[in-house]
Amino acid sequence: MERNLLLTIEYDGSGFSGWQRQPDRRTVQGTLEEALGRVLGQAVQIQGTSRTDSGVHALGQQATLRGDFGIPTDKLMPAVNNILAGRSGGIGRIGRVGDVRLTAVREMPPGFHARFDAVGKLYRYLLSERETPDIFRRNYCYQLPQVLDLAAMRQAAAQIVGTHDFCCFQSAGGTERETTVRTVYALTLERTEHAEGSQLTMEIRGDGFLYNMVRIITGTLVEVGLGLRSAASVQEILDSGDRQLAGHTAPAAGLYLVRVFYDQTELLAR
Amino acid sequence: MERNLLLTIEYDGSGFSGWQRQPDRRTVQGTLEEALGRVLGQAVQIQGTSRTDSGVHALGQQATLRGDFGIPTDKLMPAVNNILAGRSGGIGRIGRVGDVRLTAVREMPPGFHARFDAVGKLYRYLLSERETPDIFRRNYCYQLPQVLDLAAMRQAAAQIVGTHDFCCFQSAGGTERETTVRTVYALTLERTEHAEGSQLTMEIRGDGFLYNMVRIITGTLVEVGLGLRSAASVQEILDSGDRQLAGHTAPAAGLYLVRVFYDQTELLAR
Repeated sequence: MERNLLLTIEYDGSGFSGWQRQPDRRTVQGTLEEALGRVLGQAVQIQGTSRTDSGVHALGQQATLRGDFGIPTDKLMPAVNNILAGRSGGIGRIGRVGDVRLTAVREMPPGFHARFDAVGKLYRYLLSERETPDIFRRNYCYQLPQVLDLAAMRQAAAQIVGTHDFCCFQSAGGTERETTVRTVYALTLERTEHAEGSQLTMEIRGDGFLYNMVRIITGTLVEVGLGLRSAASVQEILDSGDRQLAGHTAPAAGLYLVRVFYDQTELLAR
Repeated sequence: MERNLLLTIEYDGSGFSGWQRQPDRRTVQGTLEEALGRVLGQAVQIQGTSRTDSGVHALGQQATLRGDFGIPTDKLMPAVNNILAGRSGGIGRIGRVGDVRLTAVREMPPGFHARFDAVGKLYRYLLSERETPDIFRRNYCYQLPQVLDLAAMRQAAAQIVGTHDFCCFQSAGGTERETTVRTVYALTLERTEHAEGSQLTMEIRGDGFLYNMVRIITGTLVEVGLGLRSAASVQEILDSGDRQLAGHTAPAAGLYLVRVFYDQTELLAR
């Protein structure tokens, strides 16, 4: 009997050429399919929700795996994670940590699809504010050498929230979409203080995102925070529909796919 | 006139095949020499204090650079760091962070040597205690799936402090030394609590360290903390002089060269 398994996946994107399988490149999809194939004893293909770019991280990527597998759901995850953890480490199995792992496996009805059934997503973007660079976090946040104007960034963020045509906040090269209208339900910015600086955590929740949309929104807000453009300019960008007016694309390193929603109530809950 | 410059260097070891220059491998020394050579317009060689292994990090590695250079000391560091930061990043020069950088450049007397004049070193080792692995920190700490017995580890650590023959705490393959007697001035362990677990920070200060000595001491203390060996066994290891009796070599990922001392008073100050 064909089963349909929903995998929840966490990965550090810095060692991968993105999600999507490519010949001769280490990708998340390719690495997972290889480990799953070894455990299941057959070649497999998985369908991911988001084709994250090179360097982008995930705490809760989702993918479906279809096939006639005998293995119980609760045995699959430890077996795959054991392979993904690699060989290096401390003593015995202790200390072996890979850069991708499964965090959940669920049995789904036959018709369920990880991408087409998603009703929304939550992304996080980390911005560090400190005078000297932190070389140990270069793959995990966008490092700004000064404190940003948080009030202005929040003013700009408020204009992003809602249903808009976001064509000006997308890069060329993504999948062709029928419409570039999307709804952003929430866009929050919080500052936390650290010993050697501070960090801004941006979270954006929406029904869908165009190619590079989160990173271009972030780049635009960073320019507002640096005083390079006004908070009001965001409304002008949206009205113009012109990609040239929006800000730069913030680096992949700061971006995390936190969660994929399959339930409208959970998507809209705060 | 030949100058003698002392460079202080910070690096994330996870992208390097260690410190020492090697053909066809990306090493810290090789990367620095190339960047320095571009700025100075001539091939240069530097002498580092510690040949750290692949994956080992440094906050305060030291190296000397000799030669007849016209560039002022305060101009050298930003020029080299600009090259080391690479091209990728956010907007303009903002957001470009490399995995190695200079943190200080000092003019020294002609006879000064980064390695031979060192009177001691301080290393830090980070141990994380949490049930589920943290994939984002896999290159930066040794991840233990449980809370360690800190009291027992401190008892064991107390036996390491002092002047001993540490031949049983070294790996084969290091430089031949005249003696394997070393003095450890201090070995401290502190626990800090985090949202999803805790972290032990070990710091060890001594007049010199044999090949892999800090990592084997750490591995031995971890085994004590896991209850795999008694705290008293450390004294037996030291008395035996037998490498087989000591614990495993803790992973490179958790190790940081924090500081090199050239002044006995600073080395002994708490």
